[in-house]
Amino acid sequence: MFITLEGPEGSGKTTQLPGLADFLRAQGHRVLATREPGGTPIGDQIRGVLFDLKNKEMHPRSEILLFQASRAQLVETVIRPALADGQIVLCDRYADSTLAYQGYGHRMDLAQLREIVRFATGGLQPNLTLFLDIDVEAGLKRRDKDGDWNRLDDYALDFHRRVRAGYLELIAAEPDRWAVVDAAQPPEAVAAALQQAVLARLPQAG
Amino acid sequence: MFITLEGPEGSGKTTQLPGLADFLRAQGHRVLATREPGGTPIGDQIRGVLFDLKNKEMHPRSEILLFQASRAQLVETVIRPALADGQIVLCDRYADSTLAYQGYGHRMDLAQLREIVRFATGGLQPNLTLFLDIDVEAGLKRRDKDGDWNRLDDYALDFHRRVRAGYLELIAAEPDRWAVVDAAQPPEAVAAALQQAVLARLPQAG
Repeated sequence: MFITLEGPEGSGKTTQLPGLADFLRAQGHRVLATREPGGTPIGDQIRGVLFDLKNKEMHPRSEILLFQASRAQLVETVIRPALADGQIVLCDRYADSTLAYQGYGHRMDLAQLREIVRFATGGLQPNLTLFLDIDVEAGLKRRDKDGDWNRLDDYALDFHRRVRAGYLELIAAEPDRWAVVDAAQPPEAVAAALQQAVLARLPQAG
Repeated sequence: MFITLEGPEGSGKTTQLPGLADFLRAQGHRVLATREPGGTPIGDQIRGVLFDLKNKEMHPRSEILLFQASRAQLVETVIRPALADGQIVLCDRYADSTLAYQGYGHRMDLAQLREIVRFATGGLQPNLTLFLDIDVEAGLKRRDKDGDWNRLDDYALDFHRRVRAGYLELIAAEPDRWAVVDAAQPPEAVAAALQQAVLARLPQAG
């Protein structure tokens, strides 16, 4: 089972993911937790280029292609082998991030993006995508407080609003794949909601 | 005028390019010489990832996407502005390298590659492509002697043979855009042939 986590900046995905992995392991599942961009030695080098605040001149098409390069490497060397081995794969961001950030956020052509994403992923789609929803301003405020500000956070507020609206469109188009969790709740409540959403989709144990 | 240089490893493109640029400058043209992958600060970081011998695990789709990311950045921040400014742009490798190396060399789907290249370049095509042709084994021997061996040179001889055969197919499909120069000649003869090929295409000076 391939599960992805999506959400605007500051939605708490990255904080929640290890806890969700531990919860599933405690249920007897073997779990691989990974993230995008990165998750492989080559992907981590690409992540460094993408998030470096010095790289302000990055063109949106170049940005998109770097995300896809990291994704192709992660899919082929980590995700597919783990799925083939029967593990649950949890991934912090995946293809929907490209559509939300580059498609809706940067207003790039969605059909063309879907084509490039299909090339990068070799067609691999998640079975379940957990959307941690949070108001854009509240999310960015959290990021700032965490001191984890990167080049992408620097885009204007309007950009981040388009990203969230884009996610909501993606969810509306494919509601069965998504589970929406209110990320403004206290962390323990978010964790419980994520666990519940995953349990509801997992094949019943023996 | 946008001129690209293509050829198998060891064909001498990189050695010839500065001389060709100087020749055109001596003719009164303003010339911008650049290269792929790289040619921009972000592209040079990507080049570092692509050519690092440690990155042996790189998946072909990831490799392709990294080349395109570097290309998009170069096209938008360097090549298009220089062309708009009336300069002649000379570029060491461009889109044809993707088709030859990844399409013919790695046997990836050519139609899909053309689509991704079109995204990366925003549709910008060279007016003239100079092909420095050399026998594959002779070319690789030159590279080895130069001590400039990188991760891509490490692919098997068969790969490099498919690359050269791929170039020849691309030339056959679009002969007006290409000029083929025998790169096994002494360097001065290669330089003269390149100069001649460019002069034949340049609009006559007032």
